[in-house]
Amino acid sequence: MPRRVDQEERKRQITDAVVRITVKGGLASATFREVAAEAGVSVRLVQYYFGTKDQLLLDTQRHVAERSVARIQRLLADLGEDPEPRDVLRTIMRSFVPVDAETHQAMLMYVVLFTASLVDPVLKRAEAADVPASMRDAFAHQLRRARLRTGVDPDREALVLLTLVTGLAQGVLDGQISAPEAFATIDYSLDRVLRS
Amino acid sequence: MPRRVDQEERKRQITDAVVRITVKGGLASATFREVAAEAGVSVRLVQYYFGTKDQLLLDTQRHVAERSVARIQRLLADLGEDPEPRDVLRTIMRSFVPVDAETHQAMLMYVVLFTASLVDPVLKRAEAADVPASMRDAFAHQLRRARLRTGVDPDREALVLLTLVTGLAQGVLDGQISAPEAFATIDYSLDRVLRS
Repeated sequence: MPRRVDQEERKRQITDAVVRITVKGGLASATFREVAAEAGVSVRLVQYYFGTKDQLLLDTQRHVAERSVARIQRLLADLGEDPEPRDVLRTIMRSFVPVDAETHQAMLMYVVLFTASLVDPVLKRAEAADVPASMRDAFAHQLRRARLRTGVDPDREALVLLTLVTGLAQGVLDGQISAPEAFATIDYSLDRVLRS
Repeated sequence: MPRRVDQEERKRQITDAVVRITVKGGLASATFREVAAEAGVSVRLVQYYFGTKDQLLLDTQRHVAERSVARIQRLLADLGEDPEPRDVLRTIMRSFVPVDAETHQAMLMYVVLFTASLVDPVLKRAEAADVPASMRDAFAHQLRRARLRTGVDPDREALVLLTLVTGLAQGVLDGQISAPEAFATIDYSLDRVLRS
């Protein structure tokens, strides 16, 4: 195995440890020492790969986002060729709702890192806005392809659907909304936007 | 001044210090020592009033929520007697969007404490769900009073509007959405729900 692939795998093993620790005890508990112990590597190796805690968190954020994007792409591929806009929107929106350990971890890390970035300028890099911005573009694109009900503005509605889905996902994470209720609310919202 | 009022004022002075420190450096920086220094009181007094960091944060959360509720009630009172459902909904929804230091602090503290409660069971007390639950009830109540467009379900729509408004407020906090865009999106959403 080439050295570069090996390095990437080792880094991912370490950021996976960050996720497991954060899910249990929050970001403050993810010290280099704890992360190294959880990942089964030396503190020196964590320092060598990431240098600073901020860099470790940025790479964790990137790995979590990459995994979520890959999951959405698999779900979209399952829809077959040339899927209906409603099915694309529904699939993407549903993918945010925590229903198992992986989706729960992904949403929790998103919330935790978003919150940290509000008070830590280093974590607030420009790329952090890429995911919501590209989601919003994807929503607007699908809405423009669809038969919309009267009064629906694709660009405004894309923002409404995006904020709705992050709000629902946070409610499920918190236990204030059940996953079935979130799914039903997604379907209700799409019915209000798209002609049947 | 009776002793009890004096105590409440002193406690509020300390939780205000928690807010100022958290806005600058996150929850981790709000140690008893830092909070005492910022509030201009002794560490012993902070310990005497709150005992634990969790209790300090719970009281901070309560004070911030009380202030937000009082602000919304003032804004609603300004609408005069028997206001239209649209005006009530619009006023409550707009009140969440950060536009000045006070609303920015309130939303930031909400996000920070929500996130902390996801990994700290002590912070996840039952009352934390009271604010969203009563907001949702208030929204549903106003929607049932209003002339709704075809297909609008007051209970589902109340959840949609609530998650929308927290999502918009977080986007403004983060700088991804401007306040005018959030206000326009609120008006757009109400137009889609209510008959004119």
